Amino acid sequence: MTVVKAYAATSPTSGLTPTTLERREPGAHDVEIAIEFCGLCHSDVHATRGEWGGNTYPLTPGHEIVGTVSRVGSDVSKFAVGDKVGVGCMVDSCRECEACEEGLEQYCENGNVGTYGAKDPRQNGEITQGGYSESVVVNENYVLRVPTNLDPAAVAPLLCAGITTYSPLRHFDVEPGDVVGVVGLGGLGHMAVKIAKAMGAEVKVFTTSAAKVEAAKELGADEVILSKDEQSMKSAGRSIDVIIDTVAAPHDLDPYFRTLRLDGALFQLGLPSSAMPPVNPGTLIRRRLAYAGSLIGGIEETQEMLDFCAEHGVVSDIEMVTAEQINEAYDRMVAGDVKYRFVLDTSTL
Amino acid sequence: MTVVKAYAATSPTSGLTPTTLERREPGAHDVEIAIEFCGLCHSDVHATRGEWGGNTYPLTPGHEIVGTVSRVGSDVSKFAVGDKVGVGCMVDSCRECEACEEGLEQYCENGNVGTYGAKDPRQNGEITQGGYSESVVVNENYVLRVPTNLDPAAVAPLLCAGITTYSPLRHFDVEPGDVVGVVGLGGLGHMAVKIAKAMGAEVKVFTTSAAKVEAAKELGADEVILSKDEQSMKSAGRSIDVIIDTVAAPHDLDPYFRTLRLDGALFQLGLPSSAMPPVNPGTLIRRRLAYAGSLIGGIEETQEMLDFCAEHGVVSDIEMVTAEQINEAYDRMVAGDVKYRFVLDTSTL
Repeated sequence: MTVVKAYAATSPTSGLTPTTLERREPGAHDVEIAIEFCGLCHSDVHATRGEWGGNTYPLTPGHEIVGTVSRVGSDVSKFAVGDKVGVGCMVDSCRECEACEEGLEQYCENGNVGTYGAKDPRQNGEITQGGYSESVVVNENYVLRVPTNLDPAAVAPLLCAGITTYSPLRHFDVEPGDVVGVVGLGGLGHMAVKIAKAMGAEVKVFTTSAAKVEAAKELGADEVILSKDEQSMKSAGRSIDVIIDTVAAPHDLDPYFRTLRLDGALFQLGLPSSAMPPVNPGTLIRRRLAYAGSLIGGIEETQEMLDFCAEHGVVSDIEMVTAEQINEAYDRMVAGDVKYRFVLDTSTL
Repeated sequence: MTVVKAYAATSPTSGLTPTTLERREPGAHDVEIAIEFCGLCHSDVHATRGEWGGNTYPLTPGHEIVGTVSRVGSDVSKFAVGDKVGVGCMVDSCRECEACEEGLEQYCENGNVGTYGAKDPRQNGEITQGGYSESVVVNENYVLRVPTNLDPAAVAPLLCAGITTYSPLRHFDVEPGDVVGVVGLGGLGHMAVKIAKAMGAEVKVFTTSAAKVEAAKELGADEVILSKDEQSMKSAGRSIDVIIDTVAAPHDLDPYFRTLRLDGALFQLGLPSSAMPPVNPGTLIRRRLAYAGSLIGGIEETQEMLDFCAEHGVVSDIEMVTAEQINEAYDRMVAGDVKYRFVLDTSTL
């Protein structure tokens, strides 16, 4: 067992404070990772503040982990000491159900093992602890290879925000000539713009704020639609193949459905804590539309996404923070004051 | 011009009464059809009673038409006098938009021309009149060939109820080994059961009423699930690939979504007149589900459906009515008292 420095919440109202964690010795198939960077995801805020319920404290969040392999178990074949690697939202799954066998571990029928705050059945039900820490030990099959031509700090958010947007775009077979709409320009939204552009799509960003038009264009958006302007929305009617909706607050989807072409789909990735307005089935019927969900991505697909980003030079736009700045960063995330992802430098723990 | 006997509503409260209609002389590409049978669709009730708004009276409904070609225009190549033919929910479309060019005329970007109650741009904006009449004149490209091995009266409902359920099942690529769920056992639902079975699927019917269990099994259902019984619904969890939901009243979809497997889809075909309860995006996200719509089918696909039904001996279960019984039949439809479709014998007009 190794004792490492970490930051943890001790209650929903404690904020994040310095602590230590015990990490297991690497088993035969385990990789020990010296963590260098960890993205700050909005889920981390929800979890540490108990907004989704069911938490156990103390809780060290963080599931956008990048670091270097420091030790490997005796039977590890995929990684060697010194490799640059990453860990995303899960560290294990049942490995036996249909979903796991298809490489869709995120949809494991027995529940994937989240990177933090989850019971780990293979570790006597111990609660997993995340990446706001000096190191982590993970089975090699749930570890990703980080391309060496990308800035490792800016890669960290790809492990959650990147794959969460890449997977539905890939699932919908986005290719050059397609038109992708992006609703919401935060951590997920800005990745959706970059990835859709890299796939060769034309990208239209929906925003409620005229102040964000320039920022969206800087990210690569071909067009920015003011969603509160009826005329703009009408002009965008029947022009989009797939919409990536990253807004995690209740909002009426009907105006967005109307911008979709025949056979279009809207993927909702954000999870509002209160009910969405009703969907109008007539709108779906008239153009054979689909209102769909999508959850992160499988391990194989996450590796594919990283390799795709390496090929196209795609990373997240980040603002680096020290451990002491985490609580302030959380408040700024809630206020939407970040372009577009905070990343923790774990050398400051 | 030919004057023919028909039944029409003269106001939302008039009911259907005897009248006459003028049918145009067949143009070069037109087919004149001596109507023999016309299905009574729930849409006919909504339209004649003004429940969907925007109607012009007098209105002769009927869009499940089967008859025999009585005259053809000079340039008609697809049909000859004496052919058994059908007409479904549309009699024309713009023929130029992307949807029309792809054979998806039902999604015509300029609006398909409904078989009744629609302005027909190629006939000086005249309002179309439907199949509760002795004859109809339709462009040959919107006429279907009725397989001669099937009972023509029982074929009539295939032109709306049949294609409306066939199209989403085909769109989802249902094949042997798939599990299809059917919600609601009316005109559409009973066709969904028969067609899904003919496609080789295992079929599970959801019903609120224990009294319908036997009827569902007689139609071919492999399993009947009492949707109000929590334990039954739980047992059906994660067991279905695609659900055809034909219920046109507001109902909570979440319990049905939970019966879907990973990548499952629920097609809602019924159009409630008031809002549906909200959809929980979390349920969609956790299994990459889709909530989708679908509208009848294109002309080519409708012909494919008729040929498929001929091959598999699929027709509608019908109860024949005379013209005088139409109003009573409407009341029985509203009360759900029909197994499963009324068909008008037009010789009684």
